[in-house]
Amino acid sequence: MPEMPSYAIGFVFYPGMTALDVIGPQTVFNSLPGVRIHRLWKTLNPITTDDGTVITPDMTFAKCPPLDIICIGGGMGQNAVVDDAEILDFLAKQGNDAKFVTSVCGGSEFLAKAGLLNGYRAATHWAAREKLASLGVAVGTERVVVDRNRMTGGGVTAGIDFGLTVAARLYGEDIAKITQLLIEYDPAPPFDAGSPEKADPELVEKAMSFVSGVMQA
Amino acid sequence: MPEMPSYAIGFVFYPGMTALDVIGPQTVFNSLPGVRIHRLWKTLNPITTDDGTVITPDMTFAKCPPLDIICIGGGMGQNAVVDDAEILDFLAKQGNDAKFVTSVCGGSEFLAKAGLLNGYRAATHWAAREKLASLGVAVGTERVVVDRNRMTGGGVTAGIDFGLTVAARLYGEDIAKITQLLIEYDPAPPFDAGSPEKADPELVEKAMSFVSGVMQA
Repeated sequence: MPEMPSYAIGFVFYPGMTALDVIGPQTVFNSLPGVRIHRLWKTLNPITTDDGTVITPDMTFAKCPPLDIICIGGGMGQNAVVDDAEILDFLAKQGNDAKFVTSVCGGSEFLAKAGLLNGYRAATHWAAREKLASLGVAVGTERVVVDRNRMTGGGVTAGIDFGLTVAARLYGEDIAKITQLLIEYDPAPPFDAGSPEKADPELVEKAMSFVSGVMQA
Repeated sequence: MPEMPSYAIGFVFYPGMTALDVIGPQTVFNSLPGVRIHRLWKTLNPITTDDGTVITPDMTFAKCPPLDIICIGGGMGQNAVVDDAEILDFLAKQGNDAKFVTSVCGGSEFLAKAGLLNGYRAATHWAAREKLASLGVAVGTERVVVDRNRMTGGGVTAGIDFGLTVAARLYGEDIAKITQLLIEYDPAPPFDAGSPEKADPELVEKAMSFVSGVMQA
């Protein structure tokens, strides 16, 4: 291999986040050469994701080195922490100097509240589009929205497409394709109901009411 | 909601596993009504996945109740534990009575070694097909292989398609579709290199040599 650039990539791990939002792109980045991944939180105490997985962060906000890429996901429990000053301050501080400021799913709401999406287009989970727009962000409905150095993915599984998009920017298409092959990302959903534009309206309504119920809790 | 069936679903969490193999279907199952997920290991001590994520199991093999579904994923570190008698005994014992015996990625090698795939077809990561065949398993190259009550997924991200396939079997297509919508699984890979049949042969060779190097370590 020729000499490769190296990057510090930080994912915020908070209680109530959706693990898959972040484990998707983390898995993509993990097989890239020269990437150092940090799992960040206020403390090194374990957090519990919204599916009940207990994950221990490995770096605190306070000790985190300057990041090339900062990323935050969404989650059923994000309402409880999305106005947390310590998180928003950390994002704002790292985001000012990062090469890429990124999110997956409802994570874009944190970026918006940290002041990092003023004048930018961004993606979010389909059920959170109105909320993000209400924060003054131009919401894109693409799977991955790239606006200058803001790279944001849609809901949950969009993090994988997001990760591959970032990988190609960092290391070129061939390495991104090898990564895609390593994670055998040749999707074949058994149904075609993965977006509100494609699913039956009655199912969209049920999904929305499920999200609303859980997010208010 | 009408009364729903309930299921105990157990995922084995071992050191060196690929987190995404299991976090994919776990996320699918988490939004199903009446599902109880157990994260299983020999002890309740944290394990580190092959991307460096530290996850704490919540149930030991010894105390695990009878499972309706048993699932195990693969990982860059699976060679170190794939002949472990305690894991294989646990799989064999639970697998005998489970409604579905399942795996994602290289996890099918564990099932084979536990004697659970004799006379069955099964899927695995594309780079592990020859190895699985050498264990006497009829290897399917589909994304998800269903043979009676054996349901197995291909590499890493195939776990999401696998999860939705299982969800539909357990709760019907409408609920599986709602789940697909909740995780916004409307994939749009930026490249079409997710299988060895689709990727450039030179990239397949590079990916295979990466896998071989890491798996031997």
